Amino acid sequence: MNIVVIGSGNVASHLARALYMAKHRILQVCSRTIDNAQILANEVNADSIDEVQQINVQADLYILSIKDDALAEVVEQLPDVDGMVVHTAGSVSVNILSRFKNYGVFYPFQTFVKSAELQFDAIPILVEANTIANASLLMGLGNELSKRVLQASSDQRGALHISAVFACNFVNHMYRLGEDVLKESGLPFELLHPLIQETANKVLRMSPSVAQTGPAARNDQQIIQKHLNQLEGQKETQQIYRMLTDSILKYNK
Amino acid sequence: MNIVVIGSGNVASHLARALYMAKHRILQVCSRTIDNAQILANEVNADSIDEVQQINVQADLYILSIKDDALAEVVEQLPDVDGMVVHTAGSVSVNILSRFKNYGVFYPFQTFVKSAELQFDAIPILVEANTIANASLLMGLGNELSKRVLQASSDQRGALHISAVFACNFVNHMYRLGEDVLKESGLPFELLHPLIQETANKVLRMSPSVAQTGPAARNDQQIIQKHLNQLEGQKETQQIYRMLTDSILKYNK
Repeated sequence: MNIVVIGSGNVASHLARALYMAKHRILQVCSRTIDNAQILANEVNADSIDEVQQINVQADLYILSIKDDALAEVVEQLPDVDGMVVHTAGSVSVNILSRFKNYGVFYPFQTFVKSAELQFDAIPILVEANTIANASLLMGLGNELSKRVLQASSDQRGALHISAVFACNFVNHMYRLGEDVLKESGLPFELLHPLIQETANKVLRMSPSVAQTGPAARNDQQIIQKHLNQLEGQKETQQIYRMLTDSILKYNK
Repeated sequence: MNIVVIGSGNVASHLARALYMAKHRILQVCSRTIDNAQILANEVNADSIDEVQQINVQADLYILSIKDDALAEVVEQLPDVDGMVVHTAGSVSVNILSRFKNYGVFYPFQTFVKSAELQFDAIPILVEANTIANASLLMGLGNELSKRVLQASSDQRGALHISAVFACNFVNHMYRLGEDVLKESGLPFELLHPLIQETANKVLRMSPSVAQTGPAARNDQQIIQKHLNQLEGQKETQQIYRMLTDSILKYNK
C-alpha cells in the first residue's frame, strides 16, 4: 500500500517503521515541525511535509497519529481523498472521520517511547471501519504487523483505554509513590526491581484476583495501621494507601 | 549451618529450599499442621515437628517464618537457645526477639507463591542483628543465596515494606480494576499483557517519574472527563480514577 503518515510522535514513528519493514511504501510524513517530519521521513524513505494541504491525494491509506485534541482540526483541513483515512487513538470515536468515503481506526495498544525498540508483533491492534470491506482491509494490514488483531467498537476501545490507564499509568504512579517512600528512608528504588518484575509476570499466568497478596488481602489490620501511622508525614500517599486498601478489602469480602 | 525452620508457608518454603541447595543442613521443619511440616521436611531432608517445644536446642540458626501476628506468641513458647533466632518479616521490629542471646532479621524481599520457581539470587535480602558479629554472620549467609544483601534498620525495612505494598499489592489491584473494566466490555484481560510487561520493563531502565505517560501526565482534561463519564456506573473505580489522576497532576506540576 501507498501510505501517508500524519504525525511524527511515538505512535506515528513506531507504526511508520513497522509498515516500512512490512514492505509498504510510505509516501509522506507530515508534521507541523518540519524537522520532526524529516527525521522520521529519512528513516522510512519518505518525503517530509509540514502542511496537511500538501498531502498526496492518490495514496491508499492516510494514518492520523496525532494528539487527540488536534484531531478534529486536522480532519477539517485534510483535502478530500478516496483512500482510507484512519486514526490511531484509543478514546476517539471512529465517527470523527465520517466526512471521508472510507475511514476507520487502527489502534495499536501499547505504551510507546519513541526511541525504545518494541516487538510490534506482540502488540494487540484494534480495528474498526465504516464498511465491512474496509474493516477487512485493516484486519489484513494489522495481521502483517501483529499476531493479535481484533475488531472492536469505539465503546470497547474506550474501555480498553481506561483499563490501560489503570494497568499502565496508575501502575507507574504506584511505582513512583513506592520510590518516594524508599527515598525518604535512604533506600534505592532498585530494591523494588525484582518485585516489580515478578508482580507483572504473575498476572501473565493467573488472574489478578488470584495473584493478590499483602496486608489488605490478608486483612492484617495490625500492619495496615502501622503503615498508615508511618505515612503520617506524607498525607496524600497515606490517603491513597487507605483508599486502595479499602478497595482490596471490599473485593475480597 | 544446622538450621531449624519454624513455619511452612511461602517464605519458609522458598528459604528452606534455597538454604538446602546451598548445602546447609535443615534439622527440623516445625508447623502447627504436621502434614505441612512433613511436605517441606521431605523436600529438604529434615524432620517434621508440630510444637515449638520440640525444637532441637543445639542448632546454629532458628528461622521464624510465620504470620506477623503469630510471632509474639511463638517467641514466648520457644525454649532458650544459644543459636541465633531470626524472623523474616518486613514490618516487625527486631526487638520482638530480644529475649534471646543472639537474634536478628533475615528478610527476603519478594512476593512469594509457594509453588512458583524463583531465582533466589536476584532477590534482595535485608539483614539486621543485635551485634555486629551476628550481622556479619547473616550477611555471609545472605551472600550465599543472593547477589543483593544489605543491612537495614527496622525502620528502613518498614519503609521497604510500605513501598512494596505500592509497587506490588496496589499494582496488582490496578491490574484487577483494569480487568473489570475490560470484562464489562466483553474484552479479554490478555489484551493488557504486553502493556503490563512493557510498563514494568520501562522502570527497570528509567525512574517512574520519567516513565509516566497517559492522560493525567499530559493533563488531557478532555479524555480524563470522558473516562470519568464512562465510569459513572462503577462508582468506586471512578473515585479511584479521580484520586490517582489528581495525584499524578500534582506530581507533574
